[in-house]
Parts: sequence; structure tokens; C-alpha cells
Amino acid sequence: MRSTWKQRLAAIDRRGFLATAGLSAACSQKGEQAADEEPPSQLGAQVSAYGERSPYETAKRLVPDLKRPQIGSTTTPLADTEGILTPSSLHFERHHAGVPPIDPARHTLLIHGMVDRPTVFTLDELKRLPSVSRIHFIECSGNSGREWKAPGAGDVQRGFGLASCSEWTGVPVSLLLEEAGLRRDAKWVLAEGADACKLFRSLPLDKLLRDALVVYAQNGEAIRPSQGYPLRLLVPGFEGNTNVKWLRQLKVVDEPYMAKDETSKYTDLMPDGKARIFTFVMDAKSVITHPSGGRKLSGPGFHEIRGLAWSGRGRIETVEVSTDGGKRWKASMLQEPRLPMAFTRFRMAWEWDGQPVELMSRAIDETGYAQPSREDLAAARGLQSSYHYTGIKAWRITASGEVHSV
Amino acid sequence: MRSTWKQRLAAIDRRGFLATAGLSAACSQKGEQAADEEPPSQLGAQVSAYGERSPYETAKRLVPDLKRPQIGSTTTPLADTEGILTPSSLHFERHHAGVPPIDPARHTLLIHGMVDRPTVFTLDELKRLPSVSRIHFIECSGNSGREWKAPGAGDVQRGFGLASCSEWTGVPVSLLLEEAGLRRDAKWVLAEGADACKLFRSLPLDKLLRDALVVYAQNGEAIRPSQGYPLRLLVPGFEGNTNVKWLRQLKVVDEPYMAKDETSKYTDLMPDGKARIFTFVMDAKSVITHPSGGRKLSGPGFHEIRGLAWSGRGRIETVEVSTDGGKRWKASMLQEPRLPMAFTRFRMAWEWDGQPVELMSRAIDETGYAQPSREDLAAARGLQSSYHYTGIKAWRITASGEVHSV
Repeated sequence: MRSTWKQRLAAIDRRGFLATAGLSAACSQKGEQAADEEPPSQLGAQVSAYGERSPYETAKRLVPDLKRPQIGSTTTPLADTEGILTPSSLHFERHHAGVPPIDPARHTLLIHGMVDRPTVFTLDELKRLPSVSRIHFIECSGNSGREWKAPGAGDVQRGFGLASCSEWTGVPVSLLLEEAGLRRDAKWVLAEGADACKLFRSLPLDKLLRDALVVYAQNGEAIRPSQGYPLRLLVPGFEGNTNVKWLRQLKVVDEPYMAKDETSKYTDLMPDGKARIFTFVMDAKSVITHPSGGRKLSGPGFHEIRGLAWSGRGRIETVEVSTDGGKRWKASMLQEPRLPMAFTRFRMAWEWDGQPVELMSRAIDETGYAQPSREDLAAARGLQSSYHYTGIKAWRITASGEVHSV
Repeated sequence: MRSTWKQRLAAIDRRGFLATAGLSAACSQKGEQAADEEPPSQLGAQVSAYGERSPYETAKRLVPDLKRPQIGSTTTPLADTEGILTPSSLHFERHHAGVPPIDPARHTLLIHGMVDRPTVFTLDELKRLPSVSRIHFIECSGNSGREWKAPGAGDVQRGFGLASCSEWTGVPVSLLLEEAGLRRDAKWVLAEGADACKLFRSLPLDKLLRDALVVYAQNGEAIRPSQGYPLRLLVPGFEGNTNVKWLRQLKVVDEPYMAKDETSKYTDLMPDGKARIFTFVMDAKSVITHPSGGRKLSGPGFHEIRGLAWSGRGRIETVEVSTDGGKRWKASMLQEPRLPMAFTRFRMAWEWDGQPVELMSRAIDETGYAQPSREDLAAARGLQSSYHYTGIKAWRITASGEVHSV
């Protein structure tokens, strides 16, 4: 007879399996139960208008210790998430002037510049227009940025948590620009937010016409304030900073503005001292979320390796996993539906023999782009960048089950 | 030149369109803006560990006025949701003894009965096993139940809000039963919850082996207490009551238990006085969420008709919409991905001419099952049931734009 899952879970520690011995096989309305389990005999909590999570659940965004906590970022605890969605309450944040307290009845979107009919939309008007819902990730281009200096991401949240995935609903930007009478010689669009710093970015018109949305809903309800309430520009697959929050205007122009956030920031310093600019697309990337840095395996035996992969260029086609430090690679199972520019959950069955080992994952997207090793990435781009780090991540497991970043 | 969207939105009231006249076409870091919009000059709110929605958003579950608010239901405000997901905080509730305060470290799942190895799983063990994530709706079989007596659902929330849709993650029931050594002569499974009333249901083994899950996560995070924390039985497409919350045991048996909730309750009284029992599957259904009962259209012009459709038998294939009280029907646009036994969002462009009108929707699933008219449903099943109402719903719009249930 093959091993049971219980035996595979507890290759050494058999406590779990033995605990099942001597159990009554009876089940009745009286409810016999295992000794550990004591169902309540009292009525539980009452129904409520807006639910909360269990007080036993404590996963949270990491709030850094900052002089000005309005200007900074928090990270999603990806190692504590399942599936492909990020709870809106845990979606990463990156603010440049805090979260503005916007009254949706007074918020408008202005479309102007190289258009025949400058137009202002109220939120009510936008919500009446033809709408689209799509599941997309947003990733800050600075995600995993510390890996440029040294591959030291201590855990998934610190190293990869500037990425999250939600279902977004809104209006195609193409509809709004056509409404305003887009001129044929237009080439770029400046998108500006309503925060105190009026963060804005220049974006290529063809991308916005192809698949960008002005979104007002996230995961079924109104977009959250820290994600841009009441309006956000959603530019699928482009770096997070271009997904302008609290969107207040789109100005159509013929060349980029060369704003602070596209010249001194959000550019990639190359080995020759020049910088790449307008590197919008987030390349394919993956990370094993379980087992992962800072966690500890309970013991040898069966573990399901789980992780997330995503690409700004389309669907994830394959995620290969190595359990021997990169010598051999094997395709993992990908959870369907695999959606373009969305998180894809990958999983692989694995039996840990208790020996030290290194786990790695490598994503390949539908364009054939394969996530590079740190060495290949460094050879192509040097190590002076702060943004767009996509190198393969390895976790080392010690004999005691501790998981460390490599 | 064709009408602009603004003109189509405001066929009569042109205020919105005229408001755009005379706007400056300049855009700079100084941020010229429409008069209504006053971006803040102060830093906004700081980053936070666990986000909340905007105080301007007030959609909530309806909490009935009950003597024992632990025993009752709340409904999802479906007319206020977008896309296909229901925010976990707004997922409908139906409790028979309140929400038990369960410590996940002490909660276990017992598998016993007609198995060779009665087995107890801790939550940690379950989370280590091979996992699956899927997006599925759950609908209480009593949803729209009042329509049996009279088609009086005043609004979407009251009439259809006992249905919600989430991404769920957990372990296939088939794996757990095989682990316990399922015997060949087994035919049914009793699933019991850990609430004070120990709610339980008998379920056909073949369905559980086919696609049921024991889930511990919902929409990316741990399942919510009001949805069964820490474990729920997820039986895709089966009536809500069978998706046993706070799951504590599965007992494998050879015949159903004929429990209270499958004999005196959750059965369908037929015209001949007999009752259908074990009518598990939720048939195809749809509802227009906008425009819908209790709301008011702002005026004639363009409106996007939006709604939700779902079927316990698989994918939604078509949703037809009528804007003339059922005389003519036209296929609506369905949002992809269309997933089996999940909400599907449908949309249709519509210009309201300001005349009284009746809107209706009709779902057809991949098995060819078409949502019946109230008359056809009554002819087949009489009007004595409380459960499984699936009749086509109509909303009547008056000349003043008020929307009423028909």
C-alpha cells in the first residue's frame, strides 16, 4: 500500500497520524468529536452589515518607520495569501503625498490637450458609460529593488510585496479620448492625480488606446482610498507608478513631459552611465511563497511548493521549479484561469528529505520571455539600477527547516 | 458627426456637456482644474497596515430586525457591486446558531464512517496538502423565495442578495476521502459544522468526489468567520446550505441521514402535495442590477444595462435582455473569463427614450438550460415552494425614471 498523505506529511513526526487512533467512528447529532475540538453550545456572534476577518488572522502590510508616513510604501504579505487575488485591505501602497480625502460627488476627470472637445466627466457620468472588468496585477517598478545591491530579500513580503492583484472595473480610456475628439497627431498622454503633489506621468497614447482603463471599482466594491478612490488609471502590465491614483486629468500631447518621476526617478541606470527611460513594462517574474524566507518547515515529508508568477507582457505560459539549486527544472502546475497581466498561482508537490536544499522558480510568459538569473540580468543591465529587478529568487532550507534568502 | 457620449448620457439635461465649455486646455504642474475640483494642498492620510474603504462608501448587508440576530440572514448589495467578485465583507450570511468563535489552532476535521482509516486533520496539515483555487458563487436556495408568493422583490438586494461569489482555496474532498481509505460501498457523506446547532447535511458522494473542496481561504485571505472560518465545505453549484460552514466532520455513509435541513426544510413542495427532496443544484438565473428596483434613472439617454448571471450546472452561455417587456430579446455582452459555477457579468448598451418600459434578462447555461418565465416555472412546480425560485425578473421604469419590481 502506498503511503497515506498523513504519513507523507509526517515523515518523522507521526504525532498527527497517531492522534487518529481510537477515534469513534460514530457521527450523530450529539456530535462526538476529537478531544481537541470543543464546539460551542452557545449561540455565536450575530449577523452584521459589514464583515471583518477573524481576530486570529493578523496578516498585515508592513508599515515602515518613517518621519512622514504619508510618503512611503507598504507591502502585501504575499506569503500569507492564497489564490491569485489580493484582499483590497492588503493591497500594497506607495504614496508620494499621502491619501487625499476625496468627496466623490466633487471629483471630476478632465480630458484635454490635443482634443477637439475638452471634456469634464463627473463620477456619475463615468459610471454610466460602457464598462469593463478585468483581473490585473499592479507592481511597483521598485519591487525587489534591494536585490540589485545584494540578493538579500529576507522574506517574500519585504522582497516582493510591492505587487498585488485585483479585479478592476471601469471605462476604457479609448472611449474617453474618442469622446473628447482625439487629434490624429497626438502621441502621448499626461495623467495626473489629485494628491497634494499632483503626481503625474507621461504615457504612450497607443498603450492607453489598446487596453488602459479609468477604474472606479476594485474587487467588487468602490476602489479603496489607498488605491486611488474614486478614480485610478489602470495601465495593465505597466509599472505601478503609471497607474495614477486619484486620477483628475488626462492631457493629450505630442511628446512626453519629462517629469521628475520619469527622469530623476523611475529610470534605469546602465553600466555605461546612461539611463534607460520609459521602461514601462514589468517583465515576467515569479517567487515561491511557500516555503519562503523567514518561515520554518515543520519537518521533513510532503510540502506543496506554492508561488506566484506574473508578466506585464501577457499570460504566464510556464513556471519551472528547481529543488536542487538550479541543476534540474520541472514545470509546475498552473492554476486556471491564467489571465493576461494577472497573478498566476503555481504549485508543485515536493517531499523534503530533511537535507539542506535550495528552491528556485523561473517564469516564462506567452511571448517566450524567460525570467533571467541574477547573473544574466547583471550582465545585461549592470547592478546600478533601482527598478525592474526580475532575477530568479532562491530560498535555502537548512536541516532544521529554517528558510533563508540566498 | 455622431453624438458624443456626453450627448447620449444627457439626451435632455445638457448641464454636464455645457460645463466643459471654456475650459483651459493647459495642463501643468500647477494643476489647473474645473471649478468643482479642489485638490488638497496638504499631505493626505498615511500608509496603514490594513486598509479600509472610503467613508463615502456605505453599501452594506441588510440586517433584519430579529429577536435572535444570530439566527437569520443578511443579503449582499448586488446592485452596488461591479465585476464578478463579492467583497468578503459583503458576502451574504445565513446562520442557524450564530458565528462560532473558533480558535484555528484547536479546530480539526474528522473523516470517518465507511473508511478504513478514520482520520483527523489539523488546519496546519490541511494547508500543507495539495491545494486548488477556484472562483465560485454560493447561493442560498431560499434566494428570491418571496417571488413564489408574489413577484414583489422590491430591489436586487432583497430579492437576489442571498448569492455571492468569491475565489476559494482549499483541498479537494476526494483527496481527503481517499486518504481515509474510502470504502467501495459508500454512497453519501454527512457534513457537519461546529456551530452550536451542529448544522449538517447529507451529500451524494459522487458530487463530493467530482469537485467539492474543503476551503480555508476566500478572496486571497483566510475565510471570514461569517463564511465558516477556519474551514468550509465548498460544493460548487449546490444550494448554499450544503456548503457547510465551520466544517468539523465528514462521515461517509451508505444512505442520507434525512436531517431536519433536508426533510422539513430545504425541500420543494409540489402541486400534488408531495415534496421534492435533495434538489441540490442551483439552476441558471440572472438579474439586471442596473437599472433595478428602488433606484431612479437620472434621465433619458444612454444607460448601460448591467447584471449578473450564474448556474450551478456550469458556465453561462448566453444572457438575453429584453427592453420591451419580453417581446424581443437580444444577446448581451458577457465579461470574460466565464467560469463554471461562478457569477458572470453581462452588459448591454441602451438608450432610454424617457417612455415607460420593462427590462428583463434570461440566462442560458452551457447545458442548454434556459431560465423560465414565472408562468412556466409555476406550471412545472406550482407556487407552494420556498426554495429554488429562478423565474425571469422584470423591472418597470416609469416616465420619471423610477424603477419598480414587476
